Amino acid sequence: MLKNEITELLGLDFPIIQAPMAGGVTTSKFVATVSNNGALGMIGAGYLSAHQLRQQIREVKQLTANNFGVNLFVPNYFELIEDEVEMMNKLLKHYHGELNIPFEKLILPTLESVFHSYMEQIQVIMEEKVPICSFTFGVPTLDVMKKLKQHNIISIGTATTVVEVVAIERLGMDAVVVQGSEAGGHRGNFISDHEESLIGLSSLIPQVVDNISIPVIAAGGIMDGRGLMAALCLGAKAVQMGTAFLTCEESGAHPVHKEAILDSKVEDTTLTRAFSGKWARGIKNKFIKEMQDQASIPSFPVQNVLTQSIRKSSANQNNKDYMSLWSGQNSALARNETVERLIQRVMEQANRINKNV
Amino acid sequence: MLKNEITELLGLDFPIIQAPMAGGVTTSKFVATVSNNGALGMIGAGYLSAHQLRQQIREVKQLTANNFGVNLFVPNYFELIEDEVEMMNKLLKHYHGELNIPFEKLILPTLESVFHSYMEQIQVIMEEKVPICSFTFGVPTLDVMKKLKQHNIISIGTATTVVEVVAIERLGMDAVVVQGSEAGGHRGNFISDHEESLIGLSSLIPQVVDNISIPVIAAGGIMDGRGLMAALCLGAKAVQMGTAFLTCEESGAHPVHKEAILDSKVEDTTLTRAFSGKWARGIKNKFIKEMQDQASIPSFPVQNVLTQSIRKSSANQNNKDYMSLWSGQNSALARNETVERLIQRVMEQANRINKNV
Repeated sequence: MLKNEITELLGLDFPIIQAPMAGGVTTSKFVATVSNNGALGMIGAGYLSAHQLRQQIREVKQLTANNFGVNLFVPNYFELIEDEVEMMNKLLKHYHGELNIPFEKLILPTLESVFHSYMEQIQVIMEEKVPICSFTFGVPTLDVMKKLKQHNIISIGTATTVVEVVAIERLGMDAVVVQGSEAGGHRGNFISDHEESLIGLSSLIPQVVDNISIPVIAAGGIMDGRGLMAALCLGAKAVQMGTAFLTCEESGAHPVHKEAILDSKVEDTTLTRAFSGKWARGIKNKFIKEMQDQASIPSFPVQNVLTQSIRKSSANQNNKDYMSLWSGQNSALARNETVERLIQRVMEQANRINKNV
Repeated sequence: MLKNEITELLGLDFPIIQAPMAGGVTTSKFVATVSNNGALGMIGAGYLSAHQLRQQIREVKQLTANNFGVNLFVPNYFELIEDEVEMMNKLLKHYHGELNIPFEKLILPTLESVFHSYMEQIQVIMEEKVPICSFTFGVPTLDVMKKLKQHNIISIGTATTVVEVVAIERLGMDAVVVQGSEAGGHRGNFISDHEESLIGLSSLIPQVVDNISIPVIAAGGIMDGRGLMAALCLGAKAVQMGTAFLTCEESGAHPVHKEAILDSKVEDTTLTRAFSGKWARGIKNKFIKEMQDQASIPSFPVQNVLTQSIRKSSANQNNKDYMSLWSGQNSALARNETVERLIQRVMEQANRINKNV
């Protein structure tokens, strides 16, 4: 059960994928360390420019001979509604004051800039011959799929419901990450609406595997060998773990972020659109609480740009009140240990359960 | 793994408990059939009078020599706000017209009537020497706990978060059902608020078992041997299955309810307070959709009484639009088969997985 078509497809010792957390968590050293320890390291490239991405891919290649992957955010249509932006900026001014953020003219994203940047990232993936590329917030177009196949790049989709998984299989992708409602960070729904997409992982996996034949990778709240074995029993072939890797010594997450997870209880996470305009799960803090009654939050990635300086200043001041402390529902099981130790511990526990069943 | 302290405690062949679904699902024949097939049959007594409960307990005893249980709703404080009730009645009048419901003077519940009826149920449980009693929506008082122990009645609590599980263990209960966010029917949270209580089962189980030592029974979306094995891998000792039993031939659920589940997809359930005033998961229908923007819904059990005739008439007319079609998130895995076949199928699949891991 612990060796299967997905470990073979991805060239792994263990059926474990490090979730591609964007925003500085997945440093080159971190990604390479995961890959060097028999799991799959992933670069969370959502917010990287093509230039930054190319640089990081080259760094990772220097640090590991094993497979690794890159995750991209598929752009979605969004509208920039000036009134909404203006109102949000007024509201956020208060936090600029609190954090002493100097005035800065914002460059707001446009559809053109976002799509252009994504296509440049795709180009880098091909040119640098990245072995594995996963996608979130949507699926690549048929053109992109064709290019990926021509370059022998393994493609992985991200889905939250059966209908999304079926779309990913039809498109010809090689595997799919299914994201349960427990998952930390941004929700990956792209066909189903937010509420429909909140399916518990243990309900999602069996329904998904009954409907498709490509291998399923389970994500959402998996922290140890128990979660790994449960996912495999339900029909998944591997797990993607985010929060568990985020608190590792090698991860690039801010120490305040790690601490917030390590200090948390199971009831401490919540879903919010406040930081980025897209629903995401994180540890409840002052910003989330104060923003929760805001009816009108601009869409992703507009809101993400609007709150950028607040999140950044808050982090610089080691103040967790205004940082996006992404975390899955199993945050309380997180530990601060090396990547090597985490992977060992998960596999030891999985093997113990394996023997006892 | 499939034989453990919980099968021993409850005297079962298999680590499977039929969820105590209230409202006519758990007929005597159904409960006894479950117990006769090596799992635990449970009477959902939430809405039964003491007299009805006594009668049903005696019927079940006639039909099985095996253990069975009763589940009670622990009453909670509620206020009867006249303006709110009046407004809701005005709103519901429209449905009375649609369903041709003749005018009937409602007897609204009072705190006194609800608590009185609960204490009478407790009395029946003692007198009839019911082997197992589980509680939902709260925990019994210390007095009641003492009486249960004096009568050698095994007590089981229901929890949705770690803090609730800890309270149940401290109180001296023998086991606990942990209800994941996937679960159908009413939410069992009683310390944590609604939002906090929505924890996916695969995140909830490991955190719970790390914090208590009484055996854990997992509930929420478990439909087959995969779900059973996953729950056991995560640290549970048994599973409580509702939706899977509800669509069985012997269950007393309305045929329209069974059909709605059998025809459903994974994305079809939602959480609503519209039917009873308490959050519950069911298949989305007209009533839920039309009521979803109602800010002011009276508390449980007031709203439950207010919508009673609507639900009843809708059922009598085989009209699923206004019935409470409770169901877990794994509704799409439901089958229409005998209780015997369901239990066999779950155990066969669990044993197959057991051999393959």
